[in-house]
Amino acid sequence: MANGSRRVVIVGASAAGLRCASRLARLCPGWTVTVVEQREVFSYAACGLPYVLSGDVDDADELRRTSDGALRDAAFFAAVKRVNVLAGRRAVAADAAAHTLTLAGPGAEKERLGWDELVLATGASPRRLPAQPQHPRVRSFHVLDDLEPLRAGLRRGEIARVVIVGAGLVGCELAEAFRALWGAEVTLLEAAGGPLPSVADTEIGAVIAAALRRGGVDLRTGVAVEAIAAFDDRVEVAIGGERRTADLVIVAVGVSPEVALARSAGAAIGPTGAIAVDDRLATSVPHVWAAGDCIEVRRLPDGTPVHLPLGSLANRQGRVLADVLAGRDERFPGAAGAVAAKVFDLNVASTGLTRARAAAAGIPARSVWITAHDRAHYWPEAAEIAINLVYEPRTRRVLGVQAVGAGEVAKRVDVATGFIARGATVAELAGLEHAYAPPFAPAIDPLATAAFAAENQEDGIEARPPDESFAGARLLDVRHAGERARHPLPATATVIALEELRAALPLPGRAPWLAVCERGARSAEAARLVRASGGTASYLGGGMRLRAMLGLADER
Amino acid sequence: MANGSRRVVIVGASAAGLRCASRLARLCPGWTVTVVEQREVFSYAACGLPYVLSGDVDDADELRRTSDGALRDAAFFAAVKRVNVLAGRRAVAADAAAHTLTLAGPGAEKERLGWDELVLATGASPRRLPAQPQHPRVRSFHVLDDLEPLRAGLRRGEIARVVIVGAGLVGCELAEAFRALWGAEVTLLEAAGGPLPSVADTEIGAVIAAALRRGGVDLRTGVAVEAIAAFDDRVEVAIGGERRTADLVIVAVGVSPEVALARSAGAAIGPTGAIAVDDRLATSVPHVWAAGDCIEVRRLPDGTPVHLPLGSLANRQGRVLADVLAGRDERFPGAAGAVAAKVFDLNVASTGLTRARAAAAGIPARSVWITAHDRAHYWPEAAEIAINLVYEPRTRRVLGVQAVGAGEVAKRVDVATGFIARGATVAELAGLEHAYAPPFAPAIDPLATAAFAAENQEDGIEARPPDESFAGARLLDVRHAGERARHPLPATATVIALEELRAALPLPGRAPWLAVCERGARSAEAARLVRASGGTASYLGGGMRLRAMLGLADER
Repeated sequence: MANGSRRVVIVGASAAGLRCASRLARLCPGWTVTVVEQREVFSYAACGLPYVLSGDVDDADELRRTSDGALRDAAFFAAVKRVNVLAGRRAVAADAAAHTLTLAGPGAEKERLGWDELVLATGASPRRLPAQPQHPRVRSFHVLDDLEPLRAGLRRGEIARVVIVGAGLVGCELAEAFRALWGAEVTLLEAAGGPLPSVADTEIGAVIAAALRRGGVDLRTGVAVEAIAAFDDRVEVAIGGERRTADLVIVAVGVSPEVALARSAGAAIGPTGAIAVDDRLATSVPHVWAAGDCIEVRRLPDGTPVHLPLGSLANRQGRVLADVLAGRDERFPGAAGAVAAKVFDLNVASTGLTRARAAAAGIPARSVWITAHDRAHYWPEAAEIAINLVYEPRTRRVLGVQAVGAGEVAKRVDVATGFIARGATVAELAGLEHAYAPPFAPAIDPLATAAFAAENQEDGIEARPPDESFAGARLLDVRHAGERARHPLPATATVIALEELRAALPLPGRAPWLAVCERGARSAEAARLVRASGGTASYLGGGMRLRAMLGLADER
Repeated sequence: MANGSRRVVIVGASAAGLRCASRLARLCPGWTVTVVEQREVFSYAACGLPYVLSGDVDDADELRRTSDGALRDAAFFAAVKRVNVLAGRRAVAADAAAHTLTLAGPGAEKERLGWDELVLATGASPRRLPAQPQHPRVRSFHVLDDLEPLRAGLRRGEIARVVIVGAGLVGCELAEAFRALWGAEVTLLEAAGGPLPSVADTEIGAVIAAALRRGGVDLRTGVAVEAIAAFDDRVEVAIGGERRTADLVIVAVGVSPEVALARSAGAAIGPTGAIAVDDRLATSVPHVWAAGDCIEVRRLPDGTPVHLPLGSLANRQGRVLADVLAGRDERFPGAAGAVAAKVFDLNVASTGLTRARAAAAGIPARSVWITAHDRAHYWPEAAEIAINLVYEPRTRRVLGVQAVGAGEVAKRVDVATGFIARGATVAELAGLEHAYAPPFAPAIDPLATAAFAAENQEDGIEARPPDESFAGARLLDVRHAGERARHPLPATATVIALEELRAALPLPGRAPWLAVCERGARSAEAARLVRASGGTASYLGGGMRLRAMLGLADER
């Protein structure tokens, strides 16, 4: 395929389309590579948009530049990449038999483009609420054009009260932006039980919820928007019998893949509603390919089709597809769906399946939770992080990792992704090798500590969720006096420091114990000791530190 | 093996020995686990010692505490871990036939200890120079006891001039400690061509050398110590015909495995001089096992025996050995040897083989170099890092990764370690999935960028080392005006910005071009264009940014 001249037409000039185009033009100098893009401004880092709004990034223009300062406009792509970008032209229909693409220009004129290979990189569009009116005070936040009206309104002081619908990644980032930089009153609504529901299980979600609330965001979970009424001077949002008045409503309830063009070409749509492709990114129609936010991929490790609209994946897919079109043996094997975000003082990262997603996919899963320092605990900048490790007990496969805290969490998720993507077991994760040095990591990495907890759990040392109710629980507090004073337990708890526990065994009574410590390590050891002495015990996963992150512990 | 009562005796109470002991006592409640330790103070984070000297860590005592604040002394291990530590007792001989261990106590008394399983965790000791006198002014820096005399001397102002022999990890960390906190005049001597010779190839070593020199350390490489003469008031060090006077000489030329006890037990010593073990950590003698700094392991990915005295590995080995002794099917598959360090304002991390080590092992290897931002380039805290990726052209296996810079390098090395340990190819590394978010990583991770460069190199786009001589080179400068002004090239360079290069092709003349840009990406593209037009071209790996890190570029 790499020989001779071919015409490749790519629809969509964002990460997947442009990366595919640029690489293809490099690999196949004789080919003609054309990109059709409906907008005039394209090729910017969309993931940076919330951070422009928050003021972390000064100038939206920086999102359009390369790291060398070059502006990625049509002239840049023509001169540097030998890629012809037809901006401001909408692809309205693809004819797979005639190998043509019909374009609508800025005016009414239509145009037909012939192709030998057609690449659909049509992306995704913000989902709308059923109740959503068409009104300038009710907006989505998805493209560069969405930024300026908000910044202008904020600068003019016209946006003092904001309702954000959807506490996904974008919703949480926007909540921080409106609140932290602009001091707006922010109500964040989420239909699910907690924020980031697709990447965080409830207890990790509760840590994020606590951070949002600490930051002054009025977070409401488990609520549905019943109606939105927009007026010239305000918007009214009806939720659960209550009415909220705001200057602006942002709808951030996720995105839907743009598949109209794929349908017109006759390409099959998958179960997620996105374009179905094989691991060479071929659609069901010969010579029609797809990449980026419009496709579904295999989720790793389980292989379920999933729609993962992530810029990093779009980039990878664009590169893989260029290689495939150039005749190389490349594959896109799927993705664990690694993501990260900053939510006020909290770093959040997640990869693979949550427990909830595993359950939805029919995979019985268990969790363990740990709290640990991200560096040597005696290093002055060491910060605590909590990890929720999700695994499949039967196969011992690692299914997912969620990490939150003030410390370095993205690193652990990146390392975990490598294990998850290849279907590694908890034992393999426990044996991970890492670069240990006090300024960068403790001698035992928190990820390995989490894997140990999972192995222990399969030995019978059960971790109870950090949000476990203490009501009626028979608490065994194995901490030191200072720790007990800092995060006190109910007075009914039995206090035996771990150092003294062996001498006190067996403990009286037959009811099960819930051992509690600060980070979960000593209480796990206590549970093991109690069990070895003939008693019954589990332990509080992640200990009182994680419970404090959840906002469930008194802190003194 | 897990049934009944067994007596396990472990020699050495540092990471490997104590971790093995603690886990074994947990897994096998009926067994007797005894640890013999020659020192009175044990179980501290030895890797933290340089950072106590540098003042980054306030109190050496913190190195002996758990993250929960408990002091890890004999009482702690007895009460919490059910491990009996016999401190201040030296194991002088092991009889594998009689299953006994002979101990020498603090006095002259001898004692025999019977064992069913013997674990050698005897660690390693600082190597001495041939010329090294026994004198308080000529010291090693290896154990907690080495710390206080130095701190006392520094506090009293008696140590103003220090000569450190050996620019390995410890030597570099100590150079910073003496210089940055204490303001001493520091001379750092290294016999090899650059610092950290076992984990950094020459050009990355040169980046570290530049950081050391920027920090005020007088680094001398390629020099041998000919003689050391110690006096009451000073030490004289003879190097290359020159004489240095100092108040103190620290010898940090690495460590040797302690194998005397292994020899007395009849256990085989491997080619590195360390105890030979299989992947279950069994020595050649039945019922005699070994773990930690005294053993050699398989280096990944090539499988060569190697001595890697690293605390993180000792920890893992201790855990694996406990599992093996308890009858579980656990293995220690080897290690890539991931390490990290802070050297003044530079973060350094390395994993797997350097090019030099690969050559020594008979593996033909090539390098590529890249410079990239560690986060989205528009993120305010983004910092630059350089990566040297070493791979085997024939198999395309990733052999090693070295990373340096002000940014996050340990994360990339941790991720790379997972790939290297399983023998992954450059293509697999290029397909790595990572959590992309502007505060944590760019859309394309620097590690993937390095893998792309390696793939390009195998396509014929050759990276030249960043310290390549420009003398006689036909330079093609493809940068913008501002970049050219910041890091100017010789006036003889041909200047054609990448945007204009296509129009200028083919370039005149037949001599090969060396394309140059700021980070290596555009010059690689330029080299590809020149080659496609019939010319000959390579590019400067890592660009002028890396050359500037090397101290080889004018900065304006």
